[in-house]
Amino acid sequence: MTTPDHGLQVTTGDLAPDAFRVAGHRTVEWIAGYLAGGVERYPVLARVRPGDVRSALPADAPEEPEPLDRILDDFERHIVPGTTHWNHPGFLAYFGISGSAPGVLGEFLGSALNVNAMLWRTGPAATELEEVALGWVRRMLGLPAEFHGVIQDTASASSLVALAAARHQVPGLDVRERGLAGAPRLVMYASAEAHSSIDKAAIALGIGRSGLRKIPTDAELRMDPGALAAAIREDRAAGMVPFAVVATVGTTSTTSVDPVPEIAAICAEHRLWLHVDAAYGGAAAVLPEMRWVLAGCERADSLVVNPHKWLFTPIDCSALYCRRPDVLRDAFDVLPEYLRTTGAAAAGEPRNLMDYGLSLGRRFRALKLWMVLRAFGARGIRDRIRAHIELARRLAERVDAAPEFERMAPAPLSVVCLRARPRDLAARGGEPAAGAYLDRLNEALLQAVNATGEAFLSHTRVRARFTLRVAIGNLRTTAAHIDRAWEILQAEAARLDRELRPPALA
Amino acid sequence: MTTPDHGLQVTTGDLAPDAFRVAGHRTVEWIAGYLAGGVERYPVLARVRPGDVRSALPADAPEEPEPLDRILDDFERHIVPGTTHWNHPGFLAYFGISGSAPGVLGEFLGSALNVNAMLWRTGPAATELEEVALGWVRRMLGLPAEFHGVIQDTASASSLVALAAARHQVPGLDVRERGLAGAPRLVMYASAEAHSSIDKAAIALGIGRSGLRKIPTDAELRMDPGALAAAIREDRAAGMVPFAVVATVGTTSTTSVDPVPEIAAICAEHRLWLHVDAAYGGAAAVLPEMRWVLAGCERADSLVVNPHKWLFTPIDCSALYCRRPDVLRDAFDVLPEYLRTTGAAAAGEPRNLMDYGLSLGRRFRALKLWMVLRAFGARGIRDRIRAHIELARRLAERVDAAPEFERMAPAPLSVVCLRARPRDLAARGGEPAAGAYLDRLNEALLQAVNATGEAFLSHTRVRARFTLRVAIGNLRTTAAHIDRAWEILQAEAARLDRELRPPALA
Repeated sequence: MTTPDHGLQVTTGDLAPDAFRVAGHRTVEWIAGYLAGGVERYPVLARVRPGDVRSALPADAPEEPEPLDRILDDFERHIVPGTTHWNHPGFLAYFGISGSAPGVLGEFLGSALNVNAMLWRTGPAATELEEVALGWVRRMLGLPAEFHGVIQDTASASSLVALAAARHQVPGLDVRERGLAGAPRLVMYASAEAHSSIDKAAIALGIGRSGLRKIPTDAELRMDPGALAAAIREDRAAGMVPFAVVATVGTTSTTSVDPVPEIAAICAEHRLWLHVDAAYGGAAAVLPEMRWVLAGCERADSLVVNPHKWLFTPIDCSALYCRRPDVLRDAFDVLPEYLRTTGAAAAGEPRNLMDYGLSLGRRFRALKLWMVLRAFGARGIRDRIRAHIELARRLAERVDAAPEFERMAPAPLSVVCLRARPRDLAARGGEPAAGAYLDRLNEALLQAVNATGEAFLSHTRVRARFTLRVAIGNLRTTAAHIDRAWEILQAEAARLDRELRPPALA
Repeated sequence: MTTPDHGLQVTTGDLAPDAFRVAGHRTVEWIAGYLAGGVERYPVLARVRPGDVRSALPADAPEEPEPLDRILDDFERHIVPGTTHWNHPGFLAYFGISGSAPGVLGEFLGSALNVNAMLWRTGPAATELEEVALGWVRRMLGLPAEFHGVIQDTASASSLVALAAARHQVPGLDVRERGLAGAPRLVMYASAEAHSSIDKAAIALGIGRSGLRKIPTDAELRMDPGALAAAIREDRAAGMVPFAVVATVGTTSTTSVDPVPEIAAICAEHRLWLHVDAAYGGAAAVLPEMRWVLAGCERADSLVVNPHKWLFTPIDCSALYCRRPDVLRDAFDVLPEYLRTTGAAAAGEPRNLMDYGLSLGRRFRALKLWMVLRAFGARGIRDRIRAHIELARRLAERVDAAPEFERMAPAPLSVVCLRARPRDLAARGGEPAAGAYLDRLNEALLQAVNATGEAFLSHTRVRARFTLRVAIGNLRTTAAHIDRAWEILQAEAARLDRELRPPALA
């Protein structure tokens, strides 16, 4: 059934079991070493130049089979050094897509089973484990029992699918059959801080970016509910048809949390679909003291939280919860004959998860999530999330206490937004020349920190000002790593200010 | 940095390296045994009843961490027996989503790196390996050098994105900004045999199912180009705006191949975007003698082929090739500030793959594909594809020679469509009573075969008649497995005909 490739003419079947075994054990050792600290031997941000990796590899697939050992050698030689290390403890750039050892094993097993759980019968365990694992997450987050979960690949897909359901249930339209031509202008709402995936969803769904109205935020970058209510009334009066509001729990830029209770009340009054993007921030609700982040979300129609963001599950795994999964199914139901089950199977068959999203192919993503939740336990998950929030608070306190820096936004979760602001410029930030210099200084600071290879930060703009983001979410990040990043930030900021300060601001 | 969970109070960090190591080696052994034949100890179609898996598992996540050994025990006890085994050699139900050992290792390594290649800099090697591996596939398939490849999760996503690009470039509209309200009715075309994902794309994009015109097929279930041309003219005359045609190379139902050269000429004449769904069938073009399946595709605007279908790559990995990737990018470009790269990095930076699809999150799918192509070599891939096609021909010949069966469609690739048709009913299939009985007989036959646990088939309807599909594409499937499936089909058909035949047809 399986036949060796090397030295034989027979080239059907999979690789020889022993070839897999040997390479598999080597791979386990490599991963164990990598996760245990080997990753720190590399700069967190890859130092390769564009084209380096490509030019090291041949333009054509090899004609003859190659031994796995050679492929693994090339992996270590060409791929690993060309990688930005998301599992590096100094990876502080984006929401902690934080793989964990049990999640890696889950992905390994899942890829060996290679199940496509499009129908219940093509993956009974995959289908039911998805329900079980998402039930566990739901209860850990304190979400209502009526929320039915289904796994999508990313929050982009989850939000797209949720908003398609919202669009589907607009009274008087039949978007599924007739499309949007001839329909009134639909409008959806999100804060000015909402994620770019909401823009992409508006484009994909044929709403257009002009049909996605961005609502201003308050001083803490949270959606202004009064402005939302006013926008809805205004659009209604103009003959448009508001149909959905996207609230964000933990915005990408600053992790601000929209006032969902007020937004939910407005949605109820106007009968709009409330979708909550809690892709990152929702995970914090595993902590009793952080449960407030999901306040009001029990009234949502749909909510997305990504275990691959802050629940230690390797990318990709996005949990979409929906109060009325039938709307999701109805929005896309196109079951062709060759996928209909017949006879006895059809009668008692539970739901087929392919009906609750865009993709027919559905790999076994629940397995890794289930393994992570068991291996850490609910307590272990809470401890780790709490540790990240504490690390962020610790950094925020230091920034607040540092006369040469300023914090640019509240840090309710595990991201700290800051910038260097030399103390003698504290009162002059409003002057155009000083403002431009501070932006330039912080851009240079970002490059300098990232060039060290010890930390990788990202940036945003807060009220138009260039701002550094320190996003904590990696299992391997400890207080020592945060302290080191802070040390680098301070030293580099002082050095750059000396080098870059224009005479006019001296 | 990493601290053990068991027996200690410290619960930050990942699992202890030794815990991962021990569980990892156990997992390698389990997978090696499973792929080497262990899978055949299970019925291919899981025998669990709905709810069995769910009810065997607790309703809540465990509070305390559990050792990996216990989790792996439960995986073997509850998950594996509840799994329909896509890697079983008797899995003949759907296109051979055929995992392979090198692909499994690639997924393992990819999940350990846990890269999100949304930007080049967040995954230089992942970004460039994606270009390299898709370049290899492109050259193996003989597609033109202008085709730029990008990996999506599934063909559903690939086709959605491609059709969004098609919609974006309709002259006189600005769908990205203004949406479809107020726009003329857009129309896209696909054959009546096209995949359901095209329907889902039409729904998602706001075109609606009525905006997806299904073109009739010829006697061999291929799109009728004359009917396509007539439909376009008719719709134009009615004031609608045709914008895209989806041709299928290897339909899901019967693997028919649309006449792409003629369709491409029509698209050129009417300036319509030609998208080719070659998700399954495209892989056959690795063989010189099968290169014809992609004839005309060099004129396509976009084409999807899924390495996870018939190139031995574990699910998910869908390759979308696009002649004008700038249109893809323009259709969705919404880059927010926090993802913009600045300074020196921005100048020489190559493309960021997140701009070429809907999902921001992009895992390192190219790694497994690269490992598969190297481990098998181009020759090994060709040999395996050829073997599958030969197995299908062998079965087709037997069906054709069997007086109690009939073949329902040509078998140009690796799927055989057939049904039992007792010889005395050969001339009576057109009678309503006989036709209904043959449908019933074949439904029962499908259930009976699938109940054996030795083979898992699916079904379709060919010209309204219930038809069994035998889809070959698994690495582990040999002539012996196909012979055994055929033996079962014949024996069960004879038995069922004796049991089920109504007296009126005796």
